[in-house]
Amino acid sequence: MTGSSIGELGEFALIDRITSRAVRADAVQLGVGDDAAVLRLAGDLAVSTDTMVEDVHFRRAWSSAHDVGRKAVAACVADAEAMGAVPKAVVISLALPSTTDIEWVDGFADGVASEAERACVALVGGDLTTAAVIVVTVTVLADQDGRAPLTRAGARAGDVVAMVGRLGWAAAGLAVLTRGFRSPAAVVTAHRVPEVPYGAGRIAADAGATAMIDISDGLLADLGHLCRASAVAIDLDSSAFQIAEPQQAVAAAVGGGDPLVFQLTGGDDHALVATFPTLDAVPAGWTVLGRVLPGEPVVLLDGVEPELDTQGWTHF
Amino acid sequence: MTGSSIGELGEFALIDRITSRAVRADAVQLGVGDDAAVLRLAGDLAVSTDTMVEDVHFRRAWSSAHDVGRKAVAACVADAEAMGAVPKAVVISLALPSTTDIEWVDGFADGVASEAERACVALVGGDLTTAAVIVVTVTVLADQDGRAPLTRAGARAGDVVAMVGRLGWAAAGLAVLTRGFRSPAAVVTAHRVPEVPYGAGRIAADAGATAMIDISDGLLADLGHLCRASAVAIDLDSSAFQIAEPQQAVAAAVGGGDPLVFQLTGGDDHALVATFPTLDAVPAGWTVLGRVLPGEPVVLLDGVEPELDTQGWTHF
Repeated sequence: MTGSSIGELGEFALIDRITSRAVRADAVQLGVGDDAAVLRLAGDLAVSTDTMVEDVHFRRAWSSAHDVGRKAVAACVADAEAMGAVPKAVVISLALPSTTDIEWVDGFADGVASEAERACVALVGGDLTTAAVIVVTVTVLADQDGRAPLTRAGARAGDVVAMVGRLGWAAAGLAVLTRGFRSPAAVVTAHRVPEVPYGAGRIAADAGATAMIDISDGLLADLGHLCRASAVAIDLDSSAFQIAEPQQAVAAAVGGGDPLVFQLTGGDDHALVATFPTLDAVPAGWTVLGRVLPGEPVVLLDGVEPELDTQGWTHF
Repeated sequence: MTGSSIGELGEFALIDRITSRAVRADAVQLGVGDDAAVLRLAGDLAVSTDTMVEDVHFRRAWSSAHDVGRKAVAACVADAEAMGAVPKAVVISLALPSTTDIEWVDGFADGVASEAERACVALVGGDLTTAAVIVVTVTVLADQDGRAPLTRAGARAGDVVAMVGRLGWAAAGLAVLTRGFRSPAAVVTAHRVPEVPYGAGRIAADAGATAMIDISDGLLADLGHLCRASAVAIDLDSSAFQIAEPQQAVAAAVGGGDPLVFQLTGGDDHALVATFPTLDAVPAGWTVLGRVLPGEPVVLLDGVEPELDTQGWTHF
């Protein structure tokens, strides 16, 4: 099939190529191939959907098809993690030009399967259609499994703010790619595929977290959402942030000199940030970043509102 | 806001405009606004996803934003109906050019709300992003509510084939629109928004249906899927089809003269077709179309394989 476009293959053959890589999971009563898939969950269903558009969220010149498949699954599943739920399955809609190479679709399907395996979710359905640009929509189905949904609204003054995962890596990667560079490899890779802390969401819930959010738009922007939902302020401690060497190098070269800006405003790494009633409640592997305060819903850094664009990524 | 584009409004304001019309439902534990929505279902979850792309599935010149919103919800929910499930909620991803008029988005949101009310589903989440063309992906979440999933695979020789809903109306509408006409209004309207027989799926399940499918690609194509899944043949009785006057008129004018072709090959009306063990089991309001036979998985008309394109709508 080398060099062939998907237009030569046909829709049903293409669907077979994608779904043949589908991981199955215990929750799946009925997988791909009927009008709908059927899942058996132990508790309430958590559901979230996430879309990636070519030349908006990714560029084919910067990300392989495998990267795009992995990232689409990861970004969506992270939202279910942020509820304290156990992700069980995804459905994926893929719209793409009929001139797309079959290799691209194969790579995408491999990427989906690879990330689905990491996230322990099954691919149980989808849709395939033509469009002028590639548009990928993933919907995650997750099982609250007896856990109350961990919303953004439960943070209380006095709580500890802690995170697990990574901050600012994808943004540093995008900064170097935008300027025509391909290194440091660690940050470029982070832009291509996030490292979602799978399984950490339910650990936070079981540890007694009071609120949680996934950092997709940037720490300040997403904590702003949490502050508004909980009617609290948050004060971050700048000394708590661990700045890795590659971020430092990128900041020195292209980021205005301060690598903390990537960590405060960069999205797409899908760290989880949660609030806990005490320091002792913070699970192993999480980093304490600050405190919840009473008052207006603002995010402070060392007690002061940072002069940065805190709106996060908006599309319009 | 008259004449404004969505680029002037901003993403979060736009999300508010869409979700303010959201219908709530009993299953919804947590609706729009957090990382995920949470639903409480009584039984297994049925999930299906469906994408509509501008200039592939609809044209803005032929369909209003309201039509597109209604059709996107209807087409997706029909898949859950076809499992015998009770549709409970939808999540919707909307990608659209930043130059899109706010009126279009308002009309779309009204259409979504209108169809969601008809289908008794809540809008519980979504995603909003930019793209060169409008791409709408709807995912339906439905409750099997104790009913086993009614798959395509249970039909047995001797079963009765029956349908509820409409066949060939949308195809007749598309035929006239494609030729530059706007009437008969009944078929043009049917192309714009299908009339899904909401609630009929679970009635068929309770009546003892052995297999069911929603007709999205065309009767012959979709019954072909059912025949292959069940390893049976189906013989349709041409005298069983009710040809309405507008279809007759369109067939005479543009369709080659035989309105049955629209009914056999036209998709997008989302009728439900099911197989029942006896004539007595067929619920009121359903029309008997034929019989299940043993043998190779083919769909016959009056005992003969019809010489029509039975592949249905394929995208590549």
